Amino acid sequence: MFGYVDKRFSSCYAGARRKELFICEKKCVSASNMVKKALVFLAPGAEEMEVVIVVDILRRGGIDVTVAGLPNASTVKCSRGTNIVPDVGVNDAASKGPYDVVILPGGLGGSKALAEFPIVGSILKDQEQSGRLIAAICAAPTALKAHGIAEGKTLTSYPAMKTEMEEGGKYKYSEEKVVVDGNLITSRGPGTAFDFALKIVDHLEGKDQASTIAKAMLVNYA
Amino acid sequence: MFGYVDKRFSSCYAGARRKELFICEKKCVSASNMVKKALVFLAPGAEEMEVVIVVDILRRGGIDVTVAGLPNASTVKCSRGTNIVPDVGVNDAASKGPYDVVILPGGLGGSKALAEFPIVGSILKDQEQSGRLIAAICAAPTALKAHGIAEGKTLTSYPAMKTEMEEGGKYKYSEEKVVVDGNLITSRGPGTAFDFALKIVDHLEGKDQASTIAKAMLVNYA
Repeated sequence: MFGYVDKRFSSCYAGARRKELFICEKKCVSASNMVKKALVFLAPGAEEMEVVIVVDILRRGGIDVTVAGLPNASTVKCSRGTNIVPDVGVNDAASKGPYDVVILPGGLGGSKALAEFPIVGSILKDQEQSGRLIAAICAAPTALKAHGIAEGKTLTSYPAMKTEMEEGGKYKYSEEKVVVDGNLITSRGPGTAFDFALKIVDHLEGKDQASTIAKAMLVNYA
Repeated sequence: MFGYVDKRFSSCYAGARRKELFICEKKCVSASNMVKKALVFLAPGAEEMEVVIVVDILRRGGIDVTVAGLPNASTVKCSRGTNIVPDVGVNDAASKGPYDVVILPGGLGGSKALAEFPIVGSILKDQEQSGRLIAAICAAPTALKAHGIAEGKTLTSYPAMKTEMEEGGKYKYSEEKVVVDGNLITSRGPGTAFDFALKIVDHLEGKDQASTIAKAMLVNYA
């Protein structure tokens, strides 16, 4: 258990750390088999802020996050040149499911890759058919459309993708920062990534948990 | 020139990309020798959101960013487990200076490393003596204190570090999100990292540039 605590909560914040440790210890003791699992795709050209903000915040929220590289576990160059090493390749990640949430970060290059890899479609279809959560931000809802996911639902995206998302009448479009429709959570861009990630934590771990970690990050979460 | 444009601005945003390309082309044509240079330290235990948000936003702003690994160019494990590959090791980065700005991201582990590495102190002292910009966020102002940098100035930090920063009377403390005092910019935590990075862009490239990239990210920048 301590290894888990140490790995997830080597926090930079003295005060916040004590609270996080308490939350984590409580979780580990009382619900050791209940830790939620998240899969975050990491494709070349992904928007690095959207990847890292989501991964970081979900881990603060006590969620077990797997960063899945496309096509494998090699270093991924993101849209503004940050090089991130995924935890595993996407095939290995798929074999370790199911996940409570599957998350698609944006970035034009990353979203195109997500749209083109058949295994992404397979994972998303399984996720949808099982009624588990799917979350996409920025340009990534275009990948949902490419794979025929969440048709009929209300969603949002980066503003420049609005027309593409509306074409064909498959989706209802909203311009809210974060849009929740059943088991689909979507959001708009880097500036809404904190809200997006906190909404996922809220969905999986509850509003108190989302509010607690938001406060430690100096973020307002209403 | 095109290589530069392609590397820095492989944007995910169709509309924003055209504007960014225009800005970059204008910069490259009219001031090819004037591209500003930034050094961002990447130490084990750094707060990955603060690293990535700053690097991403400065590159959007047309600034040439070098991510310097401590102690070398090996993969760095950040505070919530994201693995980032730096551009170069810190010694190589130091030899490629001077930099218009040197930036210290937070994270307790990362900030301790920044405080303990003598080369960080050397780079900061040279930066300060030359009157160039220094920027630190979250726990990282403790590393400035450890190296005797910016004494007498007004600054901020993550709230839990306030007492430590006030001890000894070396600094005046503010609780603003971003504090600018001459060539020192400091900020408070992940939730203020966008404002922090935009203020650095503002300082180096002007408010119009900061506002333009903020808008493309769906961030308010007043």
